[in-house]
Amino acid sequence: MFGNMSMLLAEDGSQLWLRARSDAHAQVIANQKSPSIDIAIKELQTQWKGAPVQLNIVRTKAVIVLGEDGYIISGENTKDIIIEASSEQGLLYGAYHLLRLQETNTLPVTFNITEYPSYAIRILNHWDSFGYTGTSGMMGLGSFWEPEKLPGTIPAFYTQYARANASIGINATVLNIIPGSPDLLTSVWIEKVKAIADVFRPYHIKVYLAPNFATPKLLGELKTADPLNKEVQKWWKNKVDEIYKYIPDFGGFLMKANSEGSSGPLDYGRTHLDGANMMADALAPHKGVLMWRAFVYDPNEVDRAKQAYLEFKPNDGKFRSNVIIQVKNGPIDFQPREPISPLFGAMKKTPVMIEYEIMQEYLGSTNHIAYLGTTFEECLDTDTYSQGSGSTVAKTTDGTMFGNKLTAISGVANHVANAANWCGHVFAQANWYVFGRLGWNNKLSAESVAEEWVRQTFTNEEAFVYPITDLMMRSREAEVDFMMPLGLHHLFACGHHYGPEPWCDEHEPGWRPDWKPSYYHQADKEGIGYDRTVTGSNAVEQYFPPLRESYGNLATCDERFLLWFHHVPWTYQMRSGRTLWDELCYHYDHGVQEVRDFQKTWDRMEKYVDPERFVHVQSKLRIQANDAVWWRDACVLYFQTFSEMPIPYNLERPNVELIELMTRTIDPFK
Amino acid sequence: MFGNMSMLLAEDGSQLWLRARSDAHAQVIANQKSPSIDIAIKELQTQWKGAPVQLNIVRTKAVIVLGEDGYIISGENTKDIIIEASSEQGLLYGAYHLLRLQETNTLPVTFNITEYPSYAIRILNHWDSFGYTGTSGMMGLGSFWEPEKLPGTIPAFYTQYARANASIGINATVLNIIPGSPDLLTSVWIEKVKAIADVFRPYHIKVYLAPNFATPKLLGELKTADPLNKEVQKWWKNKVDEIYKYIPDFGGFLMKANSEGSSGPLDYGRTHLDGANMMADALAPHKGVLMWRAFVYDPNEVDRAKQAYLEFKPNDGKFRSNVIIQVKNGPIDFQPREPISPLFGAMKKTPVMIEYEIMQEYLGSTNHIAYLGTTFEECLDTDTYSQGSGSTVAKTTDGTMFGNKLTAISGVANHVANAANWCGHVFAQANWYVFGRLGWNNKLSAESVAEEWVRQTFTNEEAFVYPITDLMMRSREAEVDFMMPLGLHHLFACGHHYGPEPWCDEHEPGWRPDWKPSYYHQADKEGIGYDRTVTGSNAVEQYFPPLRESYGNLATCDERFLLWFHHVPWTYQMRSGRTLWDELCYHYDHGVQEVRDFQKTWDRMEKYVDPERFVHVQSKLRIQANDAVWWRDACVLYFQTFSEMPIPYNLERPNVELIELMTRTIDPFK
Repeated sequence: MFGNMSMLLAEDGSQLWLRARSDAHAQVIANQKSPSIDIAIKELQTQWKGAPVQLNIVRTKAVIVLGEDGYIISGENTKDIIIEASSEQGLLYGAYHLLRLQETNTLPVTFNITEYPSYAIRILNHWDSFGYTGTSGMMGLGSFWEPEKLPGTIPAFYTQYARANASIGINATVLNIIPGSPDLLTSVWIEKVKAIADVFRPYHIKVYLAPNFATPKLLGELKTADPLNKEVQKWWKNKVDEIYKYIPDFGGFLMKANSEGSSGPLDYGRTHLDGANMMADALAPHKGVLMWRAFVYDPNEVDRAKQAYLEFKPNDGKFRSNVIIQVKNGPIDFQPREPISPLFGAMKKTPVMIEYEIMQEYLGSTNHIAYLGTTFEECLDTDTYSQGSGSTVAKTTDGTMFGNKLTAISGVANHVANAANWCGHVFAQANWYVFGRLGWNNKLSAESVAEEWVRQTFTNEEAFVYPITDLMMRSREAEVDFMMPLGLHHLFACGHHYGPEPWCDEHEPGWRPDWKPSYYHQADKEGIGYDRTVTGSNAVEQYFPPLRESYGNLATCDERFLLWFHHVPWTYQMRSGRTLWDELCYHYDHGVQEVRDFQKTWDRMEKYVDPERFVHVQSKLRIQANDAVWWRDACVLYFQTFSEMPIPYNLERPNVELIELMTRTIDPFK
Repeated sequence: MFGNMSMLLAEDGSQLWLRARSDAHAQVIANQKSPSIDIAIKELQTQWKGAPVQLNIVRTKAVIVLGEDGYIISGENTKDIIIEASSEQGLLYGAYHLLRLQETNTLPVTFNITEYPSYAIRILNHWDSFGYTGTSGMMGLGSFWEPEKLPGTIPAFYTQYARANASIGINATVLNIIPGSPDLLTSVWIEKVKAIADVFRPYHIKVYLAPNFATPKLLGELKTADPLNKEVQKWWKNKVDEIYKYIPDFGGFLMKANSEGSSGPLDYGRTHLDGANMMADALAPHKGVLMWRAFVYDPNEVDRAKQAYLEFKPNDGKFRSNVIIQVKNGPIDFQPREPISPLFGAMKKTPVMIEYEIMQEYLGSTNHIAYLGTTFEECLDTDTYSQGSGSTVAKTTDGTMFGNKLTAISGVANHVANAANWCGHVFAQANWYVFGRLGWNNKLSAESVAEEWVRQTFTNEEAFVYPITDLMMRSREAEVDFMMPLGLHHLFACGHHYGPEPWCDEHEPGWRPDWKPSYYHQADKEGIGYDRTVTGSNAVEQYFPPLRESYGNLATCDERFLLWFHHVPWTYQMRSGRTLWDELCYHYDHGVQEVRDFQKTWDRMEKYVDPERFVHVQSKLRIQANDAVWWRDACVLYFQTFSEMPIPYNLERPNVELIELMTRTIDPFK
């Protein structure tokens, strides 16, 4: 820690982007009273520094068309300000909007703001062991929710969690990993869920659960979980009724069935359609929603990238109206970059929701800066050509194109239970933030949201805001470059998703081919990449024209996806004029140089940041820089054994032998 | 290994710079016959590709003035060539000269070459456990000489070793570590020495030994080793007589006495002078030489850099005429860069010889490219001002200035017993080579010798010769930069001389202060460096004016030695305009960038080098690049805890935490 920073107080990041403080005790009045409105009043009273604010529940047409979550802000900052909404949550969102403008130095003189969300449901998916007793469950970690204390004691962070979500428009959360423990649906656990729901309710966060499809069987209450079995149908109906008795505004279920070994309707000779509709029927009387994940794949001959489409597309329109199909942004699994899933735009009658990953499972975990606003934006903005040009993923999912009323967007979040800053890395908070903001308004740019976040989380000093926003905007591309450029994917170590192991052959006996990097990179003496054109798996066929043709043609394929769709000769001439091999090396090296540049940028910011967060980020960037070199050297040296071509001579050389990297072990969770 | 190299045969480096081959069977005749002349004939017959060669022993004045080692080459390459000398070794050296011209593509049409050596004795010092039984001795390693086989079996490499030395003019070798085991002087070992001397004789390599000063006492033959004791004097006289019976041309002794715990005359209340003259008297009747090392220091209050001068200077002229004082090039101990020892030029009556280190004890051991020609040249060319301007170290040591006839130059070499390429790193051979070449002619430039070596060791292809010569010329400065720039010294790990440990405080209980890095760097909140001016240890006083004044004055001091002589504030403005702290960071980073550049240069050379040596050097450079980053980060991060200043923002940042480096352990000998 150096420089003149003694006036900057240490911060541990626990306040997230909600760091506003005011001694002014703002004048705030409301025309109605409710727990939610009380929260809105309190937030403004303690943070707002401007003119008096009125919070009004109104039933004007202008407000009603905005839906329950919408609001209008009018008035003048020098006189008075009026927030109007048809519901208490609209006022709450309006209050946070006002504070956001204040904290980002973007307050207008005259307010003329009309807001409503792009998606009805903006939901977090927690890959958490809630529902399991002890430390079983995902990665053997205990639950973030500290369920052992429930329902007797409510952890204090619940309120902070709900507040943070509400401040960015998130209005739902799935508490547990999918598929959950069968215990999750027993009364002991339902009481815990109720305790959580009660805390979240004033912040308008609905609680969802991800039950195990075989719960009635696993609990020993029935001999089967066959969705066409009357007893099973009745069991679920009763169970849902029971849940709603505890939690009248319970959100519904998120289901992962018949995927990666989880139970599901296929176990009983039934279809995803059968399973989903059975559960939807149980939820429907309570207006409960069923989110059915399309993340399904089996170790068969079919290209994994094709399986979700093959499974769901034929049943478009056959699902109940309270079913929404949850589709990961790309066809594989949250890789640093993927093309869009072909299911976007393909399902025209049954609604489809995007599943993003907020946590950086494949992007350096809690160690790297990888702002995912650009990933989210890239997906939203991609044209599916479903109904001709302009059929972006945004429009096919938010109701604009197919008129769906049931719209949702989800983000997988794995909060770090023992990190004061929630996410393990201060900059990982930005991914939570941007998910919420784009879920609210899918037309916002990733860059504007990054800037918003930087201003609130750190400072409005322009000498800080612009370089750091720029850094964030480049950060995910840097990860792509040093990990998996040009459409490469899933080169991760078989034992974890942190480091590179493009050579990994068999992690343990019986390790499935589609869990090995070689399944994806297909490197050989001639070239590299997965042929998904007509001469290969023909996954391109699942896209609408002209995407199908442009991806399927080596000459026209977006080079960012080149090796996703094509097996390309090492000597193939890229648009830059370089060979594929050289281009690959350039990307890998560029990723490293970018991270080094981020380090320089960050270190220059010392005087604008409190010492605690400055050192925290500096230290994380050192790890990231080290990891970037590790990735580059591992991949370049390994692929060089196939290409047998020299690394372009103006690029930095590896300073390690491939064999050392191949025998290095790392526990990323240590 | 990539590219079109299949025509380049693998080489293991064992041939050193002697790779010439000829199918021509050259015509060579000699006017006399001797084992040495036979060698010269055979070398030319098997390698020379030009005109017939005559080897003539002559007694012309022109040849006699060149001394026993000198020679004249005349004639024309298209007709015939004549090598003339007054002795067989002159012819041998002339033959190697001719071959060198051929192999470096520098043969003239008409020969007009007159050569004689700068120093009478050009000697290697082997820090070897010869004389010890088993694997005791230095670093617990067995002896390079494989003495257990002697005298019955002569290892084949002895001849190759002698030939390599003769080819570059080295004419003496000290077989063992100093101080040696007392067993060394027993008849069992003398017989082994004789076996070695017999092999070396035709190559005109004289054998020396480094006995333990206390040998008569340690062997139990006398109760004391007091040099003024008559019995002791007699013992040494008899012992020397015995040795010369076995080896009539035995060279003499190299003594390390009262240094680093070794025995010596001070143990008996006597002086170095007493000890040296006693042993010199024993050697004199046989024309034996006594080399007495000035590497003496004790853990007292006196600056270690001053001790040799204080000990020896007062006795100038009092030593016997067959004594020569062996002085390391710098005052401390073969650091990456040192100023010259103040003893050069100070001893005007008693001859002084330079002790260089050929092996890279402090420069990356067998892992780094660090061409020491520049180190040797820098020392030779430094003006001592002993007799006014122009009194270079070369002139004060080679007889030019003080008229000494006993002249010598030594190089510490530690050949790697189990490395086919002799030195562990192909480029380390160049340090052996340049030592020999500068010992022969101290006016040669380090650059011309590097080029000679490159041409012989690899190829005459200009696209290889010039970049690699350039790389070598920059290599030692790169080491200085990433290890110890601006006059820093001895920042090595206390347990070894490989990695950085500027923080090392106490390696083991009782560790001497002068074995700790902090003794040398003296870093504190104000600045860094050892004050050796009048306000400090006043070591500058030992230099002649104007060196004394220029080193002693912060404003005039050569910045390469700044922190050797001064404790300098972190914010001191350097000639570049930067602060000292920034300048330090720049040097450290520049060293790293240089090594990375060496990697690029080397990788471009693939098509000119056989695959075995290409990969060998490529692999070593990867280690060097890694070590360079390690050094830079360790030193910069550690010194930053004192300076509390930021690393200049345009420089690459560390990608590791200081604490990790401080807890890292490494066994450089593994």
